[in-house]
Amino acid sequence: MTNQQSDVLLSLDEVAALSRAALLRQGLAEAHVEAVTATIVAGERDGCASHGIYRLLVCADTLKTGKVAKDAIPVVDDRAGGVVRVNAKGGFAQLAFQRGLPLLVEKAKRNGIAALAINDCVHFAALWPEIEAVVAEGLVAFAFTPSHAWVAPAGGTKPLLGTNPIAFGWPRPGPYPFVFDFATSAVARGEIELHRRAGKAIPEGWGIDAEGRSTTDPAAAMAGAMLTFGGHKGSALSIMVELIAGPLIGDLTSAESIALDAGAKASPIGGELILAIDPAGFLGGEAAQHIDRAETLFDAVVGQGARLPSQRRFEARKRSLAEGVRVPRKLYDDVLALVR
Amino acid sequence: MTNQQSDVLLSLDEVAALSRAALLRQGLAEAHVEAVTATIVAGERDGCASHGIYRLLVCADTLKTGKVAKDAIPVVDDRAGGVVRVNAKGGFAQLAFQRGLPLLVEKAKRNGIAALAINDCVHFAALWPEIEAVVAEGLVAFAFTPSHAWVAPAGGTKPLLGTNPIAFGWPRPGPYPFVFDFATSAVARGEIELHRRAGKAIPEGWGIDAEGRSTTDPAAAMAGAMLTFGGHKGSALSIMVELIAGPLIGDLTSAESIALDAGAKASPIGGELILAIDPAGFLGGEAAQHIDRAETLFDAVVGQGARLPSQRRFEARKRSLAEGVRVPRKLYDDVLALVR
Repeated sequence: MTNQQSDVLLSLDEVAALSRAALLRQGLAEAHVEAVTATIVAGERDGCASHGIYRLLVCADTLKTGKVAKDAIPVVDDRAGGVVRVNAKGGFAQLAFQRGLPLLVEKAKRNGIAALAINDCVHFAALWPEIEAVVAEGLVAFAFTPSHAWVAPAGGTKPLLGTNPIAFGWPRPGPYPFVFDFATSAVARGEIELHRRAGKAIPEGWGIDAEGRSTTDPAAAMAGAMLTFGGHKGSALSIMVELIAGPLIGDLTSAESIALDAGAKASPIGGELILAIDPAGFLGGEAAQHIDRAETLFDAVVGQGARLPSQRRFEARKRSLAEGVRVPRKLYDDVLALVR
Repeated sequence: MTNQQSDVLLSLDEVAALSRAALLRQGLAEAHVEAVTATIVAGERDGCASHGIYRLLVCADTLKTGKVAKDAIPVVDDRAGGVVRVNAKGGFAQLAFQRGLPLLVEKAKRNGIAALAINDCVHFAALWPEIEAVVAEGLVAFAFTPSHAWVAPAGGTKPLLGTNPIAFGWPRPGPYPFVFDFATSAVARGEIELHRRAGKAIPEGWGIDAEGRSTTDPAAAMAGAMLTFGGHKGSALSIMVELIAGPLIGDLTSAESIALDAGAKASPIGGELILAIDPAGFLGGEAAQHIDRAETLFDAVVGQGARLPSQRRFEARKRSLAEGVRVPRKLYDDVLALVR
């Protein structure tokens, strides 16, 4: 569909400018525009096509449903010694995260471990930008968020769980931390949708139809339920995400979020849980030498021909910072149309 | 091999007495005998054949290698506000956990979140007994431990990672919490060993041979490497366990643990990380109503015919508490031989 000739070459500054223009035009308040733009630029920069400027179209659709508070001002609540909550007041998660981050870092460094709960936010992005922001402070980070009830538990037949990503980060010397961020569903929902559009069958194990039978028909799986990765183990992890980024922090499960959506097809509303651990809390002055010891593990992974998670993403980042990014003409035009 | 006639029916008190006698006879100090016995009884009671009295044989073998400090006195180190470390001094993990638990609970309730690191311990048991002990205090719990380097990372060909279990628990009304505890390897190592003994092929996906090729030969997989569950996602989680229950807490990776074992085939030596979160830290007086809200999620899982993790284990527990347990005669005799 696209070829190099029909791609548009953009610098990252141009991506940012395009994102700002598109989001302002949708009526999003400036502080949110800046926070969301940082995520969009990061996604495009790292070669995550579905989390780059394409997401501006998703954002715009979600904003049109009226389900996002465009000028929400997040409220930071300093709870127990190790806990901070930020009420996003129905706005996008990014700004709420930015506002809560300094206190999370301060608490993690003071106590060795701390948690940040974001409540009542609209979530449409990957979790790795948040992970990387915490890890940049020298901390180990975890993040979890439910989504919409699209996924059946192992052994079940009906959608109940979200795609429920789990993300983790570990500081490394140099610019690139160890980071992973994956859905606990077998694949992203968008992947099934892409197969449907292309008229292609999906592999066994991605979804079941409305009667709970294994299916290779993407439309049947979208109407039925997605499956978790890794059978009952992935299912258990998905339920864990529901619990710790739902009721534990006083927020919605994926089933509650999709009920609230009531067919509007907006991005999921709910909570997000971020944990931060300071190696110095365990190890004091010896932390650095042990963090260095982890490099032996990473070297052994790469040394046997395996890849580290995010390796491809960091390679894309290096390229994008040097050369800019190529965006398909059609996508570029669609995003430009948001500005007009 | 066994049938009901050749089984020995034991009360849980009898299991405990047998465990105590066997462990004392191996020269294990009394405080350790009590702590280990509680784990053995819990495993047998819950129908986990490989973690019940069978483990006394494994313990005895490990004790014979001289790799366990039989009379180690764990040292509790009150670190940062949210962190406690216990140095097990080369002894079994159970006693170290018991000694650290009160401070972990106190810190979690004061700060909302806390971490317990156990260092320099010998680990041979499941993690769920520790999870259940933390959850009994009304806390949400996570536990992680590396093991021996038997598992290849996704895309790799050589053993590097441990079977690296992840365990989680959530308090529920009534006697049975939500708990899972699983290896991040595709199966337990013992499962492959059982296939080897029975001369049965293993399914694709469990292991690779020494040349890194997929194999259905259990002996070839034992000599090559096990695989993680869930492809690159399970592999990422396994690496996470190495990091957070290894270098983060100043302890060994699975590769370092097996190098230290130097062929003695003792249980892995290293660390364990336990996290505890108090729902009241986020929610104060409203915590109980949100914890109750999680019951809707569990009801929806069970209501569609799926099982909750640990459901079978809790059913076995109910039975064992009422009727005692049945132990194969051969196993019973082998354990009795430890006492003589």
